[in-house]
Amino acid sequence: MRVAESAVAPRGSGGRDGILDSAIRLFDQRGYHGTSMRDIAAGAEITVASIYHHFRSKQEILQSIMVRALRAALALTRTAVVRANGSPADQLRAVMRAWVVFHTTHRMDAVVAATELRSLEPPGRDLVIALRDEQEALFRDVVARGVEEGVFATGYPLDATRGIISMGQSICIWWRADGPMTAEQLAVRYETLALAVVEAA
Amino acid sequence: MRVAESAVAPRGSGGRDGILDSAIRLFDQRGYHGTSMRDIAAGAEITVASIYHHFRSKQEILQSIMVRALRAALALTRTAVVRANGSPADQLRAVMRAWVVFHTTHRMDAVVAATELRSLEPPGRDLVIALRDEQEALFRDVVARGVEEGVFATGYPLDATRGIISMGQSICIWWRADGPMTAEQLAVRYETLALAVVEAA
Repeated sequence: MRVAESAVAPRGSGGRDGILDSAIRLFDQRGYHGTSMRDIAAGAEITVASIYHHFRSKQEILQSIMVRALRAALALTRTAVVRANGSPADQLRAVMRAWVVFHTTHRMDAVVAATELRSLEPPGRDLVIALRDEQEALFRDVVARGVEEGVFATGYPLDATRGIISMGQSICIWWRADGPMTAEQLAVRYETLALAVVEAA
Repeated sequence: MRVAESAVAPRGSGGRDGILDSAIRLFDQRGYHGTSMRDIAAGAEITVASIYHHFRSKQEILQSIMVRALRAALALTRTAVVRANGSPADQLRAVMRAWVVFHTTHRMDAVVAATELRSLEPPGRDLVIALRDEQEALFRDVVARGVEEGVFATGYPLDATRGIISMGQSICIWWRADGPMTAEQLAVRYETLALAVVEAA
């Protein structure tokens, strides 16, 4: 679990990670275009000049946030599938659980990743789209295996895959750590929903 | 179908609607904070002064876009449920179909509504949240009826409802009118997915 654990470990508040965390909070609240380098510096309690030791531009900060978020999600979900080591249903449960956990532990990152792709310029944009495609492909492979083995009855595996992905993503809009439900309880529910979507036997 | 039809009718290019359409295009591409009144005026081929005949501020334009989009979605989906006039499964099919049609015909409005709630200030924000709650309540009532009548077997009606709503919403991220699938074909698939999510008998 080394990759997955490091991906969700608490981040340091200084240097590069402190800048990214400040930027994520601000992008989540005001959006990329509503946030200035001065705001990001103030949030990280450093000077604007210090930011430029780590990043050439606000654009590079956005790219770093999105790439980091997508890589963390991919690491968590891929590890979950590899270790599920069982039936297609077990794999789907595992990948959905990891997806839900990611969207509760990285709520703000996920919001930024979902809403600011339009603000990203090439080549960062191409990289982010490639990572997003990899993420979809992982879910798609799990669903496809279940359909091929005859244990998922859905006639629309691609739409089912997208449905499952977007269900999990939408958690980051409303979920709160201090709310009535734990991430664990939520994961159990979403495992059930994912199996229902693919019409698991 | 009068309400539903007027909700999806093509909009005029002059005056108030022309301003809103220009703003929607720009907010979709660059976000609220990345768009100026000057940009909106240029997109609508009018002067900035002309915008102020119709709207007091960019904030009022955003509010108008979101309220218009949410009201149109509510009108379409409510009419669909009322006219389905049948079983819970028929109602769920009808409301999902309307939801898919809305997200293909109002793609940009839906993107703005999904991403710019954070940019909206009270009291506009409160109104938009109230309309969003109404929308969720409509889906929830349909699902709850099916569960009560024993034809939807899901143990998690609220999560199933949110899952169904977010599946439909995510269409606006990738759907293109010139793509390989018609809105009609997509609606058929999503009706099936929605019934699967609630574990319809």
